[in-house]
Amino acid sequence: MASIKPSVPKGTRDFSPAEMVKRNYIFDTIKSVFRKYGYQQIETPTMENSSTLMGKYGEEGDKLIFKVLNSGDYLAKVDEQKLIERNSNSVAVAISEKALRYDLTVPFARYVVQHQNEITFPFKRFQVQPVWRADRPQRGRYREFYQCDADVVGSDSLLNEAEFIMIYDEALTKLGLKDFSIKINNRKILSGIAQAIDKSDNIIDLTVAIDKLDKIGLDGVIKELLEKGFTDADIDKLKPVILLEGNNTEKLASLREALAQSEIGLKGCDEIETVFGYIERCPLQTAKLELDITLARGLNYYTGAIFEVKTNEVNMGSIGGGGRYDDLTGMFGLKGLTGAGISFGADRIYDVLEELNLFPAGSNQTTQVLICNFDKEGELYSLPLLQRLRRNNINTELYPAGAKIKKQMEYANNKNIPYVVVVGGDEMQTGLLTFKDMASGVQEKLTADEIVAKLNRD
Amino acid sequence: MASIKPSVPKGTRDFSPAEMVKRNYIFDTIKSVFRKYGYQQIETPTMENSSTLMGKYGEEGDKLIFKVLNSGDYLAKVDEQKLIERNSNSVAVAISEKALRYDLTVPFARYVVQHQNEITFPFKRFQVQPVWRADRPQRGRYREFYQCDADVVGSDSLLNEAEFIMIYDEALTKLGLKDFSIKINNRKILSGIAQAIDKSDNIIDLTVAIDKLDKIGLDGVIKELLEKGFTDADIDKLKPVILLEGNNTEKLASLREALAQSEIGLKGCDEIETVFGYIERCPLQTAKLELDITLARGLNYYTGAIFEVKTNEVNMGSIGGGGRYDDLTGMFGLKGLTGAGISFGADRIYDVLEELNLFPAGSNQTTQVLICNFDKEGELYSLPLLQRLRRNNINTELYPAGAKIKKQMEYANNKNIPYVVVVGGDEMQTGLLTFKDMASGVQEKLTADEIVAKLNRD
Repeated sequence: MASIKPSVPKGTRDFSPAEMVKRNYIFDTIKSVFRKYGYQQIETPTMENSSTLMGKYGEEGDKLIFKVLNSGDYLAKVDEQKLIERNSNSVAVAISEKALRYDLTVPFARYVVQHQNEITFPFKRFQVQPVWRADRPQRGRYREFYQCDADVVGSDSLLNEAEFIMIYDEALTKLGLKDFSIKINNRKILSGIAQAIDKSDNIIDLTVAIDKLDKIGLDGVIKELLEKGFTDADIDKLKPVILLEGNNTEKLASLREALAQSEIGLKGCDEIETVFGYIERCPLQTAKLELDITLARGLNYYTGAIFEVKTNEVNMGSIGGGGRYDDLTGMFGLKGLTGAGISFGADRIYDVLEELNLFPAGSNQTTQVLICNFDKEGELYSLPLLQRLRRNNINTELYPAGAKIKKQMEYANNKNIPYVVVVGGDEMQTGLLTFKDMASGVQEKLTADEIVAKLNRD
Repeated sequence: MASIKPSVPKGTRDFSPAEMVKRNYIFDTIKSVFRKYGYQQIETPTMENSSTLMGKYGEEGDKLIFKVLNSGDYLAKVDEQKLIERNSNSVAVAISEKALRYDLTVPFARYVVQHQNEITFPFKRFQVQPVWRADRPQRGRYREFYQCDADVVGSDSLLNEAEFIMIYDEALTKLGLKDFSIKINNRKILSGIAQAIDKSDNIIDLTVAIDKLDKIGLDGVIKELLEKGFTDADIDKLKPVILLEGNNTEKLASLREALAQSEIGLKGCDEIETVFGYIERCPLQTAKLELDITLARGLNYYTGAIFEVKTNEVNMGSIGGGGRYDDLTGMFGLKGLTGAGISFGADRIYDVLEELNLFPAGSNQTTQVLICNFDKEGELYSLPLLQRLRRNNINTELYPAGAKIKKQMEYANNKNIPYVVVVGGDEMQTGLLTFKDMASGVQEKLTADEIVAKLNRD
């Protein structure tokens, strides 16, 4: 070979036909559920103005944003001193006005502000598009990956929170998961807990420590809290809250007791109780709904409900998460719009379905029938059948040229085509075609009519 | 407002929910036809290594490729002299290893070479993804736009060409077009014409001139040919070929006569005739198939069949095109793989459907029913109906909080929701809910059962 073997940039992936069928299955399922709940799709451009993205994800985030070089003679107007100093950051500002989408949330906020006069609020939007991060690639972490988000802005109703729970339940049930948990918490409860021990200023330290309960156990959490300046008295008060036991109703009752002096804490309990009330009227199909006050993900961001979804069938991180945030659009100057949203972790869901063997065997996205082709005569004979099957919406191929049957069977096998029709001399004479079920290996002689009828039934 | 109004980079677009429904309709229709013909979807990364893309689209093309800045301290190792000289091109090579996909063809070629050992040939793939070009934006020309391609590699059978014609016919018929033409030509015929007047070396000049027949008429074409050094005698021989008349069979007969001395020209006629033969056995639904020897698009690229699709209902450029090319993968060192492919112009098809009012009124992608919400009592009463409708796969929303009916009706109107259910005090007492058809304005009193039954029928 003359040239070097071509490759893709590190952290990016090609998706093969087989992978695309599976990925489409996941995305189509989730999208159909989003739509069922009244969420509408939008798409935003891959490139945003750098000014839209920079400064929205913290200093670390800024570094991970891929910047796009200006076109033309982009160096012409750059300050010479900056070039000589090789100041990569300040030169980047001068030579790249555009950057790749880092998540779907900031572009959505930009969208809402830009189109506020065309939007009917509450605005329920979903978005399934790739994002790019210049992270160090590692197992399960890519530089290009799809996000799959649904958000509502302009409604503070807790019905939205309840519906997010139903969306998770319905989508993951449809995907075949049989045992998963939707954990719910509320930022106001976390505030209440901090308030109850008079440590409101240390809420971050508190929640960061509690969040690790699963990993480091109670002793680890206590050790960390002591290191952060919490007292033994604080910890005595915290223990029953951290170790909250019982079902959701019992947990809520204990919490109300512990947070009796905290207005905001009780407000958080009220909100959770309202959400549980909605769910009682619309029972979930599969999900276990669990109040989990150790859940804190993205605390600085969320202001009300916090969600996280985990499968109990496979050892895997969270496969979804979200919550309520105030002031999504404030960064673009539109104040007072509250929002709430969730996200599905598509790559992880893919791995879960793969591990549990939950991808459906057949798919309407693949070829159903291959008609074999041995010579010109058979080819011409087969064309009307080919067209008839397609008119009946059966994905059908005629092998494009005469070839040995072994090669054509391999083609069918490699493409996972379930049925093969053989049209040889005998078949053309009698009109009885050989119809082979590739899975069972069973062959029958059928007329064209019978083949059409049989496949239409499938 | 505190900040400047946010915007998207020039030449890029947001797609609103209403636009997404229409775009999905187009893409889903085309994809379903690709699949019906055995084409399989792949996706390639947004970013390719610059070395994969540069040099593949000519010098002008290279300039239009968006380059992505390397992450980290990208200036550290750049040659000082280059920086001081402000040599934008050579510095770009040093500071950007990655670039945005410019079309789907080169990444596909890269894919085929990279994955050649996993691929079963003939490999029929389709791909629907955005591409980016730093073109000057203008009406109908964007810097980010979707391409929609199907290609087969590893088969020189003309059945593929015939199936591309059927794909165009089926997809555009499904989209509701009632009068469109699929023009077909063959590079070999163009070669034959040049050979017939002994001007094989001037084939580019010849075809560029002939290609303009539509726009500048015969006199214009002759003028251009004379300017390019063709003789009056050449033109006398060319005229009957350029002005070829009659149906396809008659045109082919005349061509065979004119090209009787050109082996390659006759080969081109044979190929077209074979394709027509396939189509005769699988009659087209709507398309007019026209042999058009003035068709030359991308001549340097195509080696056999050349296609172009035009609607006759709206004045619009081509809405599709393609052809056969040899040696797609040669640029990446894999020789001898022949290919053929077509492309749909999704943005133009969108404009055509819009102008002809061909987008379907309803869509399973939008909400079917809005249940109004006036107060807590009605809200709780409505939840079981909400869940029931959704379980029946009817996209349903409950307005998330109590609000005035006017506001909720506006919400339904703006989201194009066809049905509204009103649950007020009377309704709860009698169990007869007010069901309003938003299009006709007709209201009926129906039980929840009747509403479910009615919507299931739709």
